[in-house]
Amino acid sequence: MSATTFFTSVNEQLQFVEQRMREQAGDEQHPDLKSALEHLLSAGGKRIRPTLGLLVGNMLGAPEEKLITLGASVELLHTATLVHDDLIDGALLRRGIPTLNARWSPAATVLTGDFLFARAAKLAAETDYLPLMKLFSETLATIVNGELTQMFSARGVIDRDNYYNRIYAKTASLFEMSALAATMVATEDEELRSSMKSFGYEVGMAFQIVDDILDFIGDQSTVGKPIGSDLLNGLVTLPAIYFAEAHQYDDDILSLPDGGWKDTARVQRLVDAIRESPAISQSLEEAQNSISRALNALGIAPACPEKDALEDLAKFIVDRKI
Amino acid sequence: MSATTFFTSVNEQLQFVEQRMREQAGDEQHPDLKSALEHLLSAGGKRIRPTLGLLVGNMLGAPEEKLITLGASVELLHTATLVHDDLIDGALLRRGIPTLNARWSPAATVLTGDFLFARAAKLAAETDYLPLMKLFSETLATIVNGELTQMFSARGVIDRDNYYNRIYAKTASLFEMSALAATMVATEDEELRSSMKSFGYEVGMAFQIVDDILDFIGDQSTVGKPIGSDLLNGLVTLPAIYFAEAHQYDDDILSLPDGGWKDTARVQRLVDAIRESPAISQSLEEAQNSISRALNALGIAPACPEKDALEDLAKFIVDRKI
Repeated sequence: MSATTFFTSVNEQLQFVEQRMREQAGDEQHPDLKSALEHLLSAGGKRIRPTLGLLVGNMLGAPEEKLITLGASVELLHTATLVHDDLIDGALLRRGIPTLNARWSPAATVLTGDFLFARAAKLAAETDYLPLMKLFSETLATIVNGELTQMFSARGVIDRDNYYNRIYAKTASLFEMSALAATMVATEDEELRSSMKSFGYEVGMAFQIVDDILDFIGDQSTVGKPIGSDLLNGLVTLPAIYFAEAHQYDDDILSLPDGGWKDTARVQRLVDAIRESPAISQSLEEAQNSISRALNALGIAPACPEKDALEDLAKFIVDRKI
Repeated sequence: MSATTFFTSVNEQLQFVEQRMREQAGDEQHPDLKSALEHLLSAGGKRIRPTLGLLVGNMLGAPEEKLITLGASVELLHTATLVHDDLIDGALLRRGIPTLNARWSPAATVLTGDFLFARAAKLAAETDYLPLMKLFSETLATIVNGELTQMFSARGVIDRDNYYNRIYAKTASLFEMSALAATMVATEDEELRSSMKSFGYEVGMAFQIVDDILDFIGDQSTVGKPIGSDLLNGLVTLPAIYFAEAHQYDDDILSLPDGGWKDTARVQRLVDAIRESPAISQSLEEAQNSISRALNALGIAPACPEKDALEDLAKFIVDRKI
């Protein structure tokens, strides 16, 4: 089975998720908003979050209609946070494609994000299951809190806890929600719910760690943003943390909390040093450990093709582009 | 009974609503965010929306705890939309107090609004009643759609339907939600629900019409923004619509759809003409008709002190500051 065959098994359902998302834009009277939404949805990445939810739900026999609604809700929530994120970061490109922010006024960008939040909440409510609405609102709160923490925290700070909290809020919380929500509409079994929640959590943590590795070693055209862009923004991610732990008295490292990250030449030197250091493989190993824990959590599920596909998905997370 | 005695009867419950809102900021680790939230909450107006919900709910015997949660949720949702609104309009003052937008970066303002949305959704979920969550998400969608319509619609357009849709989305939808939500946690009686929904709707429409009248005739220091500011932004509200209907061939009126609203001298002339014209009393009469319909809808409720207070609240809406 090739690394991405797991997409194939939910391909048809993903089309319905896509359709469900586009319907949210479909009744729009504003041609500008409609085209903005279509731009956002067609720029849309791999739909890894809905795929995760569909596979978990299919494995556990959840009603397809609810899984599709959930998938669309999760992906719209994800898209909404990206829209506001890009505005906040002033990002002009995402995945190499111009952001809404690059083409629109801040006002239109804020409202488009709000529109997507509203539609995501509406879809979550359509699942007709109160605990899911609670999960939805908690996840939204986690994501926004994470963004606020990132904004208010001092830049250049080298801190593992801060890092793990940040990537949980930013990424793992939505993966966790996808897997847990799909389980919740399938079963009330608390052990299964907790295992699938862990599965989503671990896969999400690994996903973000790998993203952060790619920020150092990826190909700029594939990553869609400059190499080392996190550090250039004062965000110290896992590879930099490993490197810092091994080079505590390095001048460049010591300078970071005092604003050294604003010095482009210094950051370039650091990025080159990190790329060549064991920090990369140490970070990757940490991501692999997350995936091992994910596979372990998945052990509770009965053998079936969807379980195999979820194992492939988990392995794909650390293998992509590396 | 003086015009605002109706606040007195829910004064104690309003303190709990206030406390509930402040709790949302209380566990914040970010001193900047915490102080921003406190600034927003202390700048907070009359709490007319929670008051409406409390009175309706008390009248119908709804559980107090749920009414308090609902009141806090509605008011936080209202505050969230104001925060994003002020960013969108670039407003530096609201109610004469500096907006968040005036003191913070757009990024911090966007996220603070998102944080308030998330907390409002979380509180709505705490009512443990799915139809309420649906109502919440629908109201959010209505509000955001209204803001998008306002942004994308051509300015200077003189159109009654456009106006009514806009004030429903902007104001009446939340009044309607307050009254309906408080009824929903009290009774499943469809006739009562529909009557109280109408009551909230009509009171909300009247509230916004009166606001729009005050924009022409109010005292700048009380209204907290320049007289005629709507028209200066190209927003044609009810007084201007009445005036336009009576002066179809007036040069200033004819110029509006073609950008005449950008001409400050022209707008000043129009504002003066509208202030002196019957358009003001015609608009006020329309608000009074809304209130009559509201009182009519309230007729279904049993006689009780809360019903009297709701009648006072409805009458206060058109009497305030005029």
